[in-house]
Parts: sequence; C-alpha cells; structure tokens
Amino acid sequence: MKINEVGEKDLIKILDKLISKNKKKLKSNSLVNQLISIGDDGSVWSDNSANYCITTDSMIENVHFNQQFTNWQDLGWKAISVNQSDIAAMGFDPLYCVVSIGIPKNTEIQSLKKLYKGMIEAIKKNGGEIVGGDTVHSPIITINISMIGIRKLNNDNKRNFLSRSKAKPKDLIAVTGYLGSSAGGFEILKNTQNVEGKITKYLKKAHLKPQPKVQTGIELCDHGINSAIDISDGLVQDITRICKASNVGAKILTNKIPVHKYLKKAFPENWLSFALNGGEDYELLFTGPSNLIKQICEKTKTKITIIGEITKSKKVEIVNKTNQKITKNEWEHFIK
Amino acid sequence: MKINEVGEKDLIKILDKLISKNKKKLKSNSLVNQLISIGDDGSVWSDNSANYCITTDSMIENVHFNQQFTNWQDLGWKAISVNQSDIAAMGFDPLYCVVSIGIPKNTEIQSLKKLYKGMIEAIKKNGGEIVGGDTVHSPIITINISMIGIRKLNNDNKRNFLSRSKAKPKDLIAVTGYLGSSAGGFEILKNTQNVEGKITKYLKKAHLKPQPKVQTGIELCDHGINSAIDISDGLVQDITRICKASNVGAKILTNKIPVHKYLKKAFPENWLSFALNGGEDYELLFTGPSNLIKQICEKTKTKITIIGEITKSKKVEIVNKTNQKITKNEWEHFIK
Repeated sequence: MKINEVGEKDLIKILDKLISKNKKKLKSNSLVNQLISIGDDGSVWSDNSANYCITTDSMIENVHFNQQFTNWQDLGWKAISVNQSDIAAMGFDPLYCVVSIGIPKNTEIQSLKKLYKGMIEAIKKNGGEIVGGDTVHSPIITINISMIGIRKLNNDNKRNFLSRSKAKPKDLIAVTGYLGSSAGGFEILKNTQNVEGKITKYLKKAHLKPQPKVQTGIELCDHGINSAIDISDGLVQDITRICKASNVGAKILTNKIPVHKYLKKAFPENWLSFALNGGEDYELLFTGPSNLIKQICEKTKTKITIIGEITKSKKVEIVNKTNQKITKNEWEHFIK
Repeated sequence: MKINEVGEKDLIKILDKLISKNKKKLKSNSLVNQLISIGDDGSVWSDNSANYCITTDSMIENVHFNQQFTNWQDLGWKAISVNQSDIAAMGFDPLYCVVSIGIPKNTEIQSLKKLYKGMIEAIKKNGGEIVGGDTVHSPIITINISMIGIRKLNNDNKRNFLSRSKAKPKDLIAVTGYLGSSAGGFEILKNTQNVEGKITKYLKKAHLKPQPKVQTGIELCDHGINSAIDISDGLVQDITRICKASNVGAKILTNKIPVHKYLKKAFPENWLSFALNGGEDYELLFTGPSNLIKQICEKTKTKITIIGEITKSKKVEIVNKTNQKITKNEWEHFIK
C-alpha cells in the first residue's frame, strides 16, 4: 500500500506504533524526567532546574509554499513563526533553534540572506536564537527548523505545560485573535481577487506573516490553563485533536467565532468555511473551567473569544445561532 | 552571486555573520548558560542540573544518498548515526531526537516502516529516543533529524564537553578505528568493482552502516580530553577544521594512519587518498597532551591510533614515512 492510499492520520498512527513498541526497550536517562513524548505540539521533559520542550516543522517548496506567492524574507519569518507557535501552544518560551536548509545550486546568495533576515526578524519579535544548522544542496527548497522551548519549574504544579489531552467536560473553549484570515489571504494570493487595497493587505499579511501567540501561551500556562493547541490545520481539525487526545467532545457556536470584518467583506459566502476549516491561523485554541477562562479574559490584553464548550459526547458539533447543527459537507466545501 | 559560485565554507561564513550580528540584540534566558553557539558539531548549553547539546543533519535524495545503492533500513540507520556521531564528537550521550521526513506520495508504506526500523535499530545500539517529528509530502526523499545530547555536570571542570577549538601545540593527534573504508565502500557501490566477497561486504558496510563512537566520546571527555571532531568530510578537511577553530597547525604522518587491510587490498593505488580525503568515516579525531593520550590508549577498549601532532605553524602538513610533504594535488585526486 502506498502513502497516498492512507490518510495522514493513519500514517502517523502506523509510525507512532512502531516507535512506541520499542520505547520500553530503551534505557532512560537518570538526569531527566520525560513528561510528554510523541503526539502533542512538542515533546516535554524536565530536569531539576527547568522544563524543556522540542518541536520541529518542515516546509517544502511547492507543497507548503511557492515562490510565486512568497518572498524569501516572509518565508523565513513563517518558517520560524510556525515553530514559535508550537512552542506557544505548550506554554513555553522559545530558547534555541537549529535551521536546516536544502537549496538549489543556482539560488542567489542575496535570496538566502533575505531568508535569514526574515528568520532573525521573527526571532527578535517572538524569541529564540539560531544556534546551528545545516545548509545542503537540494533540487527544491526545503526548510526544516527544530526549536527548543524552556519554562521555569513550578513547585506547586508538576504539570507545568499546556497539552492537548487535558480538556474536561464543561470546560469553556476559547481562541485568540481572528480565524480564517490566513485562508482568505491564501485565496487572494492564488486568484489575485479584486478587493479593496487595505483588505487585500490585511488578509495577505495574515497568511504570509502569521503572529504566533508566544506571550499569551506563557500567560495561559501561568494562570493554570493546561489544555491548548495552536490552530495550524483549521479550527475543526484542531479542536478534534484536543477532543481525541482528551477523550471528550466539543460544541462550537459559529456565531461566536471571531472573524475579521475584512474577511467577511472579501468573502461574503465563504468566510465561515475559512474560519472553520482554513488553517494556518496560528492562534491559540484552549479550554478551561468557566471561572478561570472568564478571569483570564478580564485580565489579559490579548483578544480572547469564548466560542463553545467541551462535552462528554466525544463528538465535535458545530452549531449555528439557532442551535442547528452544521454538517461536515456544509463547512468542508473549502478545499485547500 | 549564486550559491554555487561561492564555496560551502564562504556560504557558512556569510550566514554565521548575519546571525552573530543580531545575537547581542537577543534577550538571554536566565535559566540557562550558553557555552557554544554556531560553528561546532553541535551547540551546547547548561542549566543548574545538566549539560545539553543539539545537532542537526539533513539527507537529500540524489545528493547524500540514492535508492540504487541504499536500502530503506540502512538509510534509517545512517540518518540517526550521523547525528549520534555529532553528539559523540561533543562527548555527550544521545537523549532525544525529532525526525522530519519529506516523502513522495507513491512511496510504499512498507518502505517507510523499514526506514523507521533502521532508525530504531541505530537508537537501540547507540542511544537516543524519537520523541516527535513531521512527515510531509515531497517530490524527493528528504530526512532531517535534530538530536539532543545530555551530559552530567562536572563541578571540577566547567568546560565539560569536547569542542573543535581547544587543540594546543604539542598535543598528539589520535583517531579511532580505520579511515577510508567508507569511501572504498562507496566506490564499490558505484562501480560494482570485482573484489573478493568478504572485502566487498566489509567496505560496503563501512559506507552504509557507519558505527558512531558514542561511548568513546563520553570516555574521552571523562578523561579530560577537550578537543575533538567526528570525521564526516575526510581526515584532512576535519583536522583543518580543528586547526582553524583552535588557531594552530597539524602534522599528520601518513604511515601512521590506520587503514584496514581490506581497503589496501581492494584499492592498492587509492587507499591513502581515501583515508585522507574520503569522508563519512564517522570516527573520532581528537587531540590532547601526550601523557593523557597515551594513558587513554592503555586504558580504553576502543582502537585508537596516534597519527600526528598539533603544531604552532597554522598549516596542515601531510608527510610520508621519510618525512616528505605530500602536496594537496597528490592526496586530492579522489573526488567524490
């Protein structure tokens, strides 16, 4: 059977099974305590001084980006930002990263410099440091970044990080920022849609220069939230990940989802589809007890919106303002 | 100017300069102490409980390997081993790794399973654990692995790791194992050279399944050695890296270089060229005071050979048994 005959999820399951089967045969290191291995936004361990996490992300030319839509500097920004966003989703601070680049021989050095300029810009804004890497020849551009995050130990609470598997029934579901803008921007980039200048600019920027919510992730973790994910594959897919990992369900209210007015204006018919299923928002999606979430909403400067509730049902339900379910067919008509 | 118009070294210099320029503007994290950043086999930091290092390595299809010579399982072994070898060259123990794979859609799942089987085999042998990764579609196979190493703190000696920059004049230069066998194996794989079965088997294995010297690296560091590198690009190139980083020179005696009798038999004319310049041996090349090196040679079970001496001259000299210099033209006729 070939890879394209099984879904991505099944493929990951097969590989996780292979790795887990051999895990118990490995010797553990007495200096560290492993807290999360495979299956979250990153892996977490601690020693007696700090908590660490590691995450990795690959971008392949013509699969994750193409040179027609993306300039080198924005590409560098995005490559770093998607890793910072994974670190944010664990409640950690970006510490170090290693950057591996595969690049065609006839690439201009100026382009490579711009790529690094974009990476450094993202690091200055949201933390981290490039401490190593590997630059190799490749017929297509490939960028792989692995990033380490760090978090102080907290003596009161050993589970001092955000994970996908801690959502509980009756938790409120909340999200930072606006959803769907990145997908709207991607649609404009593909079709050179004719919409007003400032709208185009906002939506394109949402796609090309996502803003990972690093400080918010740390803040959420400090406040005692312990269930979160970053929205990389779309709200529905990512809340489903939280539900599966936590063995719960969710009810999302479409009229509560934060959607920017520019997205509604540019895509009066598709904005909800983009918000539910678009992906690459790199906002934080998190859950927690009602009083805690409300308390955070009052205290924080970050835009946070409550969009639903965790349920016992083990199903993810999307309902409109009259409490009618919206089926998968209705929200899935936007195919990336 | 295009990338192929500058050498790899110049390219790395350009990128390092870009990164270093911005380094001082970054906020440092109070939980850790950075010991080595860019420019060694890995980057090193410590907190109050342990020393860590991180290393990364990419393998691109038709650049670093091809499917004609390499089966999936051996490819998995090698992808992990080259990282373990970098960790060994710092004197650390492999702790965790993240594995990112780009793979064509029509790849057989069975092949991907074999790739992981090879990786797990290498981990069982020489340490580490796969704790995460990313599997994405790509028109060509790409494998990127980032690996974290750990080492206990040593109160007596803060510089508790091996680096390229600590060689001193009069240090002896030593190497583990045999050199050139991997290059010999690669030559046989390319040309299906007609040599005796057991010779072919040994040389091919040296190329396809390198044995990183993890335990030796830890042992050297425990004994107080602090200058080392792993031989990935060939003896001459890698001793030159030590010399440049340490601001010293070296004199290597060709008649002392450990070369396996099978390599000499299969390549009676080229074996020295392979040993000097072949690469991918993944042996450890290290330097230290004469008495310390001799003491280690007596105590260790690892095959260690003294092949020369560090000099003040800042030049790397290769001399034969009658003390005549061998010029670059003489040893460089083997081009990979």
